Amino acid sequence: MTETRTNAAYARLVARFDRIGALDEASAMLNWDAAAMMPPGGAASRGDQLAVLAGLSHELLTAPEVAADLAAAAEADGRDPWQRANLLLMRHAHTRAISLPGDLVEAATRANSACEKSWREARRAADYGQVLSRFTEVVKLAREEAQALGGALGLSPYDALMDGYQRGIRAADVAPIFAAYEHFLADALPRAEALAAEHPAARMPAGPFPIPAQEAFCRRMAERIGLGFDHARLDRSEHPFCGGTASDVRITTRYDVADGLKALFAVLHETGHALYERGLPSAFARQPVGSAAGMAVHESQSLIVEMQACRSDAFLGWLGPELAGAFGPDPAYEPGNLARLCRRVGRGFIRVDADELTYPAHVILRFRLESALIEGTLQPADLPGAWNEGMKRLLGIVPPDDAAGCLQDIHWYDGAFGYFPSYSLGAMAAAQLMAAARRDVAGLEDALAEGELAPLISWLAGNVHAKASLYGFNALLQEATGTPLDPAAFQAHLAQRYLA
Amino acid sequence: MTETRTNAAYARLVARFDRIGALDEASAMLNWDAAAMMPPGGAASRGDQLAVLAGLSHELLTAPEVAADLAAAAEADGRDPWQRANLLLMRHAHTRAISLPGDLVEAATRANSACEKSWREARRAADYGQVLSRFTEVVKLAREEAQALGGALGLSPYDALMDGYQRGIRAADVAPIFAAYEHFLADALPRAEALAAEHPAARMPAGPFPIPAQEAFCRRMAERIGLGFDHARLDRSEHPFCGGTASDVRITTRYDVADGLKALFAVLHETGHALYERGLPSAFARQPVGSAAGMAVHESQSLIVEMQACRSDAFLGWLGPELAGAFGPDPAYEPGNLARLCRRVGRGFIRVDADELTYPAHVILRFRLESALIEGTLQPADLPGAWNEGMKRLLGIVPPDDAAGCLQDIHWYDGAFGYFPSYSLGAMAAAQLMAAARRDVAGLEDALAEGELAPLISWLAGNVHAKASLYGFNALLQEATGTPLDPAAFQAHLAQRYLA
Repeated sequence: MTETRTNAAYARLVARFDRIGALDEASAMLNWDAAAMMPPGGAASRGDQLAVLAGLSHELLTAPEVAADLAAAAEADGRDPWQRANLLLMRHAHTRAISLPGDLVEAATRANSACEKSWREARRAADYGQVLSRFTEVVKLAREEAQALGGALGLSPYDALMDGYQRGIRAADVAPIFAAYEHFLADALPRAEALAAEHPAARMPAGPFPIPAQEAFCRRMAERIGLGFDHARLDRSEHPFCGGTASDVRITTRYDVADGLKALFAVLHETGHALYERGLPSAFARQPVGSAAGMAVHESQSLIVEMQACRSDAFLGWLGPELAGAFGPDPAYEPGNLARLCRRVGRGFIRVDADELTYPAHVILRFRLESALIEGTLQPADLPGAWNEGMKRLLGIVPPDDAAGCLQDIHWYDGAFGYFPSYSLGAMAAAQLMAAARRDVAGLEDALAEGELAPLISWLAGNVHAKASLYGFNALLQEATGTPLDPAAFQAHLAQRYLA
Repeated sequence: MTETRTNAAYARLVARFDRIGALDEASAMLNWDAAAMMPPGGAASRGDQLAVLAGLSHELLTAPEVAADLAAAAEADGRDPWQRANLLLMRHAHTRAISLPGDLVEAATRANSACEKSWREARRAADYGQVLSRFTEVVKLAREEAQALGGALGLSPYDALMDGYQRGIRAADVAPIFAAYEHFLADALPRAEALAAEHPAARMPAGPFPIPAQEAFCRRMAERIGLGFDHARLDRSEHPFCGGTASDVRITTRYDVADGLKALFAVLHETGHALYERGLPSAFARQPVGSAAGMAVHESQSLIVEMQACRSDAFLGWLGPELAGAFGPDPAYEPGNLARLCRRVGRGFIRVDADELTYPAHVILRFRLESALIEGTLQPADLPGAWNEGMKRLLGIVPPDDAAGCLQDIHWYDGAFGYFPSYSLGAMAAAQLMAAARRDVAGLEDALAEGELAPLISWLAGNVHAKASLYGFNALLQEATGTPLDPAAFQAHLAQRYLA
């Protein structure tokens, strides 16, 4: 086989992934619309539209000529690392795709969409029974997918699902890290609570916080951190998220007129995600190697902005007067109080409301339950009981009902299993990246004290954003920080912030 | 061939068109987003996304097995009229799709996109010369497309283009109707102007009209007319339009704080379009026979709501106090003044600002020029002169420059020829349908006087909306009103409104 023919094969693959990427961008936009814009009556058609797009994307990826082109392209040497990584990721995506029968993918997409709708009702009614039969179908199809994927990739079913969110992460690596965290938390949480009890309770700003003013403030903060609204939107949805595409990022939040900080920190979090998308190399747009490196890396980018930078003493010292300027003066914005307010620690039922110390406990619970659901050692009917037991063990509390328990998150009811570990791996990676950035970048701390994230974002842009999927999770951390994931940085960060 | 195998072929076609329909729905949503939501930086990617969706839709329609299934399905008898019409329309869509060579479509898409960009500059500079060379290329490729389509359909080139917007309409039918209207207008316009001059000039309400209040009022009016926002949205865009899908209609308008009526009547117009989409039979969703019957029929539905119903004395008598309630009392809302304000007649250069009496003159001009451009009897270089001559002849006025003349509309510069007649055929059909509804529905007028369109909409739902594409333009009118298109009703309506 000549070099020319081989390059032609690679060029055909690039063109094909460009088409697949455009199709997936269309799906991303329709998903954003479904969460932020769509009237309820559009849901059924939207499910069909997304199913057809997913089906066509799958067909493009699994067409017979792809395997031939992958084989032909692989015979060439001397490609640059980006091209080599791109080809590797194309092969990985192809292997994942051909291992899933098209009718299973379409059935799962449809079942997930139906279950998600039913979950909204069930959560409102705090009645798990309402969604159980649809959820049982979702779990059944997810198990089938996981088994098919695992067989093709040489992974256990649950590992195969995790691999879809963060390539290269295995349950066997995660379990000991999480077990160690459970151990750390058992000691740290009561100590942090005792320390917090030595101070007066953090005072809430009186408010109210009119929503238009909040929206304008959130927008200004996102812009200050570096998000340009010529390539982005900020809207509202039930759950804050970052969607859309690299050149048209859509972030959302939700507002509470009584609380001016909640929406703001959600926006700061989503802005971290959005900056990652905006910083991906446009030369590889829509190519696997040009995409974000995975959900754990994505979460590290949101958490380094929200938790590491914006909840630091330095940044909060700048933020207080800004809040006073936007919403009127309030003693709650005094530095010590604002820091306590933004860094409260406590045992709660709701993951998305959890502080950074207890958040991993929520993730550990979900990791254990979802891996058991997929491996078949836990049945959907037994989920509420297992949930409540797990909460008892990890945080010592039991939710009053399933709305505050196993119905709180959309993920599983939308067919997403294997995602949750990314949150805490991301938190750990964020702490490790922040430690490296503080070491590498002079003036980072002084900039934070001026409400200025540019030095941090610029370091991330070079060391994380611009690398896209050139490296896997641990190799990316190795290149950026000198070591693969090491949870010590996260525990040191927590100890410094909550136990000092 | 057995009945079973034949039915299997039809079932495969239905499944294929369902997929094509879902893909086209996705495109419709992305087009809505591009006009109503998208930040400017998203434009390039959006173009790619839409091109890939259109390409896949075309591939699904032109796949080799479609011709075979169409042939097999045609051999069966005894289908019900819906199925028979659906098959006919499938064949029609397939013929149109396969008659255009892929490289011609691609060349035209490229030329249209380049010309449209250049047109924006040319219109800003009021300089037709700036766009002439690009527009010449657009016309050349549109002629080639028209010839290819016409050859396949047995139509003249221009008829083949009109057929793409409103099936079954021919230039030979339109020309005499438009000639008769020109004749009618030559007499009616000076008389209407003279009559209007007998009254004091209509007084504008003082305003201002805060945009949130306008938006709330528009929404309430759309709801009152019958649009449920569980299946619809109202947003803003540069030009008002109705997009989205039958179960998730997206209407838009634009607001002017100094004018409370412009946005409102745009919303009433788009609500007419939206109710048509909402009323299409869901049993045939995404099938050709279940789609709107064409652009002229669509325009009849917007105009019967806006022009026939909502600008009637009866409705305006109800609307005045509603406006006063929403925006504060104003003598301008007194019935006689409000009617004069909402039914002003005058000679103007700009089609989209024209009243219902002179609007057809703008359409007649464009019909004559675009058919001559496509048939090759008018060259692009001669367009400005021909435009100005036509305006002189039809309305007795000559535009001061090409921005107010042949550069005002995007259509041609984006490669769209054959659409314009739909506007006036729709206006005529709207008058004919309204006359029939008044005859058939007791209490229709009294309901209008209560701001209540339900009797009218319910009649339209049964006689137009629910029929979808079961009939062509004239057969639909025949079934609903007893005759094919008869422009007499429109002239009677205008005479009664403007010459009495």
